[in-house]
Amino acid sequence: MSCDFLSLANTGVQKLHPYQAGKPSDELERELGISNIVKLASNENPLGLAQSVKDALQNELTGLTRYPDANGYYLKKALADKYAVDIEQVTLGNGSNDLLELIARAFVAREHEVIFAQHAFVVYPLVTQAIGAIAVAVPAKDYGHDLDAMAAAITDKTKLIFIANPNNPTGTFLEQDALTSFLKKVPSNVLVVLDEAYFEYAEPARRGDAIAWITEFPNLIVSRTFSKAYGLAGLRVGYSISHPDIADILNRVRQPFNCNALALKAAETVLNDEEYLQRSVTLNNQGMEDLSAFFTDNDLDFIASMGNFITVNVGKSGDEVFHALLQQGVIVRPITGYGLPNHLRVSIGTHRENQRFKEALSHVLNLES
Amino acid sequence: MSCDFLSLANTGVQKLHPYQAGKPSDELERELGISNIVKLASNENPLGLAQSVKDALQNELTGLTRYPDANGYYLKKALADKYAVDIEQVTLGNGSNDLLELIARAFVAREHEVIFAQHAFVVYPLVTQAIGAIAVAVPAKDYGHDLDAMAAAITDKTKLIFIANPNNPTGTFLEQDALTSFLKKVPSNVLVVLDEAYFEYAEPARRGDAIAWITEFPNLIVSRTFSKAYGLAGLRVGYSISHPDIADILNRVRQPFNCNALALKAAETVLNDEEYLQRSVTLNNQGMEDLSAFFTDNDLDFIASMGNFITVNVGKSGDEVFHALLQQGVIVRPITGYGLPNHLRVSIGTHRENQRFKEALSHVLNLES
Repeated sequence: MSCDFLSLANTGVQKLHPYQAGKPSDELERELGISNIVKLASNENPLGLAQSVKDALQNELTGLTRYPDANGYYLKKALADKYAVDIEQVTLGNGSNDLLELIARAFVAREHEVIFAQHAFVVYPLVTQAIGAIAVAVPAKDYGHDLDAMAAAITDKTKLIFIANPNNPTGTFLEQDALTSFLKKVPSNVLVVLDEAYFEYAEPARRGDAIAWITEFPNLIVSRTFSKAYGLAGLRVGYSISHPDIADILNRVRQPFNCNALALKAAETVLNDEEYLQRSVTLNNQGMEDLSAFFTDNDLDFIASMGNFITVNVGKSGDEVFHALLQQGVIVRPITGYGLPNHLRVSIGTHRENQRFKEALSHVLNLES
Repeated sequence: MSCDFLSLANTGVQKLHPYQAGKPSDELERELGISNIVKLASNENPLGLAQSVKDALQNELTGLTRYPDANGYYLKKALADKYAVDIEQVTLGNGSNDLLELIARAFVAREHEVIFAQHAFVVYPLVTQAIGAIAVAVPAKDYGHDLDAMAAAITDKTKLIFIANPNNPTGTFLEQDALTSFLKKVPSNVLVVLDEAYFEYAEPARRGDAIAWITEFPNLIVSRTFSKAYGLAGLRVGYSISHPDIADILNRVRQPFNCNALALKAAETVLNDEEYLQRSVTLNNQGMEDLSAFFTDNDLDFIASMGNFITVNVGKSGDEVFHALLQQGVIVRPITGYGLPNHLRVSIGTHRENQRFKEALSHVLNLES
């Protein structure tokens, strides 16, 4: 009997490789036989879970034998209130990853083109590939999006454009004027996803309010997440704000219980925890200054970042330095797969974690300071 | 500017209607202005969360700012040990719904046919429709699967067959011999998903061990869930056991963090809680006897069920009786959408909940007893 199941898979799926997630610290401690590992590899919030969320989840445990609310009513209401949109404009996802995938699956077919930037988030090519559609990766400018080139890449086969702002893994940032000029050039039948997973870390004066642009550009979808500044990476909640007709379509392909009961409750709770959010952002700003100064002092080129991570050129193979850092118990992210073989992406940690990273990198690269 | 986003959606998606989930009790209490509602509508476990799971989750809260283990290593290891399979044969899903969808998306394209039975679980036509593939619904026999007719429906365009055993919403059951005879008739390049969401409720002597059949039938995929007998509907964990090459392909389309951190921990914990599982099954058996006797006493035809629900012919519009029961504070599931307009599906509850249902139905239908 034939077992060549790969030949049975859809063409796009055959060429797909699974997403390479960072290793959990405990798995690595087991592998390497070391303890006290510092993980600065997945742009997680180093602050620990908000106390408000811990309290809220205790009370939710009893109800877990019941299905979650398929509509996510309370969380969608809270988001709609906060961003002054209609509840019908909100779509919930199992992380914003889920939304990026839902959008592609709902609107993109094999014959369509999907545009994104070189060095942009890996999920964009992955979801395009899974559908078997045509990926159009536009070369980056200064490690970020070249919006003019992206606009020029639009053809009559283009269905969807992904823009990450701030961008992961480079941390580059697009100003409001640049984005609105770009949106004016995009035909109304081409959807633009503005992936703002790191929105809360960007400078308030510069980050603007893309959600308000949806009135003028109904083909714009803004996606955000609770995995970063809100500290709920382990619970998987993201959302998009869009024209209600787009949200209606996304809800047709969305799995009804894509967000679980504890995730819904935690997100609803932390959305109102302004104090936690402020502490997250402040800690991030301090760590960003600290690491930037360290790189400058040691003549290491880094990419100015608006996210909760910083990407640095270590002047040699990032994979090698990654492995050497691992031996020191510090996990960062090599980004060779993003076309940046000499760079490492380092998540901003607590003060202590950043210190550990600086010491380990100094040791590995024989730095003076 | 055009806002006809529906015309931009993929053809299959355009015709899709969202899954109609049961209403959460608190939403309904708000709507109807009544309290003390009994919900017997979604085949949930009435026992409440296992104490072992409550304890385990308390300890997990701290780590929630970190991403879940993308590989779900510990849960997959526990499942592999329990079912004596290789860990590479296990795929985790955000509920078994996620797996049903992943399997279809990985292997089925627009030109393919997907076979399932009339009155079978609604997610089968939904995932087929989302892809835009051709749905082949084979007429039921005695409310269950007509395996001979399903085998006869296979063509060279058939890519996937869904079988629910026990079936939802009818509770019908296929014996082992019938299933293996069927599998022998299926060409090896056609995948068969045996959806065993209600497996743990079926009679041990009759339910057999379909996982062991995978050696002989590598095109067989067995899916199960933690949402029913294990009482974790709110947390969303399902899994499939398959040939490792199929699991590898499913993992390519699976979102890396499709199961969240608390869901992984809870499932790993409850899988070892034999006492909870036994109590679930015993409570279900008692309630099933109770409701079956009640229907018999009142000359109401019901379909013999191996699940944690029982489907009864109320002799008039199920939708009307559903609404009348609602007014009594009892939620059950009308199944007109399944082609059974005079039936209601009733989940087995606790003794007290079953009593409430019997009283309410007696009132609504003017029954004697």
